[in-house]
Amino acid sequence: MESTNQLQKDAPIGVFDSGVGGLTVFREIMQQIPNEKMIYFGDTARVPYGSKSKETITRFSRQIVRFLRTHHVKTIVVACNTASAYALEALQAEFDIPIIGVVEPGAKVAAGTTKNGNIGVIATEGTIGSRIYNTYINRLNPDATIYGKACPLFVPLVEEGWLNDSVTHEVASRYLAQLTDKDIDTLILGCTHYPLLRSTIQKVVGGRVTLVNPAYETAVTLQHLLSDMDLLNPKAPSPGEQQYQFFVSDKAERFLEFANSIIEHGIPTAQTIQIEEY
Amino acid sequence: MESTNQLQKDAPIGVFDSGVGGLTVFREIMQQIPNEKMIYFGDTARVPYGSKSKETITRFSRQIVRFLRTHHVKTIVVACNTASAYALEALQAEFDIPIIGVVEPGAKVAAGTTKNGNIGVIATEGTIGSRIYNTYINRLNPDATIYGKACPLFVPLVEEGWLNDSVTHEVASRYLAQLTDKDIDTLILGCTHYPLLRSTIQKVVGGRVTLVNPAYETAVTLQHLLSDMDLLNPKAPSPGEQQYQFFVSDKAERFLEFANSIIEHGIPTAQTIQIEEY
Repeated sequence: MESTNQLQKDAPIGVFDSGVGGLTVFREIMQQIPNEKMIYFGDTARVPYGSKSKETITRFSRQIVRFLRTHHVKTIVVACNTASAYALEALQAEFDIPIIGVVEPGAKVAAGTTKNGNIGVIATEGTIGSRIYNTYINRLNPDATIYGKACPLFVPLVEEGWLNDSVTHEVASRYLAQLTDKDIDTLILGCTHYPLLRSTIQKVVGGRVTLVNPAYETAVTLQHLLSDMDLLNPKAPSPGEQQYQFFVSDKAERFLEFANSIIEHGIPTAQTIQIEEY
Repeated sequence: MESTNQLQKDAPIGVFDSGVGGLTVFREIMQQIPNEKMIYFGDTARVPYGSKSKETITRFSRQIVRFLRTHHVKTIVVACNTASAYALEALQAEFDIPIIGVVEPGAKVAAGTTKNGNIGVIATEGTIGSRIYNTYINRLNPDATIYGKACPLFVPLVEEGWLNDSVTHEVASRYLAQLTDKDIDTLILGCTHYPLLRSTIQKVVGGRVTLVNPAYETAVTLQHLLSDMDLLNPKAPSPGEQQYQFFVSDKAERFLEFANSIIEHGIPTAQTIQIEEY
């Protein structure tokens, strides 16, 4: 394990994702624990992670954790389902600060929400292939049956901005038919981009199916974790103190454009770093 | 400039792309100059390139050229439109072996094909943003007007396998409406994946529009270049000699699956390398 100094209450939280999607998690944390400082990293030079291998995602994630630690973060949130599915266990074993992912919090809520025991999960190929949601849900609810479906066109459709659109509706209908056929009553939006398609997805699956957004549940879990460890920041940053910082591995312009559509009040700047040097 | 030994006729040709798309160029070279040995590299750990910056693409391409040179290639084909648009000039300045891209050959044919001077280009955001096709076409045909349109959903649709499909047809109709409105008579398929959508695209733009496939034109250009430099391999590899080798930066399975749908007789293996070490 890499050693660390004593963790400080006023240290920032590190949050990372393959690109912009993790900002939906960042936003939930901002809203739920507004005193906290945060450092966000988006791996925009190597995005997306969803179709890449466990070995590659773990290597990339390890570099990012090393980078975030140079900012003396007190905890890290892996705000990407694919990285949570593939790399979280290795990161937790290698580093000695608390690291949480987005999968377990979402799985926990889904396991408690379902009435008929039929849970759908939509996510990237990597997350579905890992069967990680199955593992976590069945630990809590061994009788639940989980139906996974990879939806590789959802991220590019979101990035094209076609959120409420006939093409997106048709694509969603095809992807989700295999799940609605199974009489699911709960559906996990298992990729950070998918909550942006929430209204189209809800129309396709019908009002009887409860959608679970792991971003929200992750912020709740983080707050409990920090509280249990007595690491919640007791006071808001002073005026003039920088509360949020953003870093990316490719140029910042495109990141900022999308980021500013997600984060209220906007993000003024993001700094580019060479992540493979960490 | 990095120095090199005298180039050998029986040395391999290096071909690279962000992923699998460049195999459409590889295939054309196989067919047009069947005596040549080739080394293919697909940057599957960092794919796609189309929405990333010039700086990042140039850095990635430089690493790949260094890797290909460890195989003593006699020439390199940048079989990716985005890398040709952004990085080719830097690579040509830094390395002392012949390096060609896919843009100039396609631009040349389009400039000679158009009758009414209205040429459409469809490609990634990077390639369209660079206006590289405009530059090359207007050098040869200053009166031509070029209409560019980025089509970011085409690559994921191809990778989903939805080649002849109502969703793909609808997406193509939206993207291409802006070009058909301009009375184009020639359309460049400016991304290596797009020839796989040729039949859908032709239906949408109508039979009056000539589609230009830069992959084909690049193989023609390469043959002329090697012939002019007296570097064509005069005889086919001996039985048992390995003619084609494939390398990738992520795991090989997924690459091989797609590769085997493109390359006749199939690709038996691909080797994973850590490209950022070059």
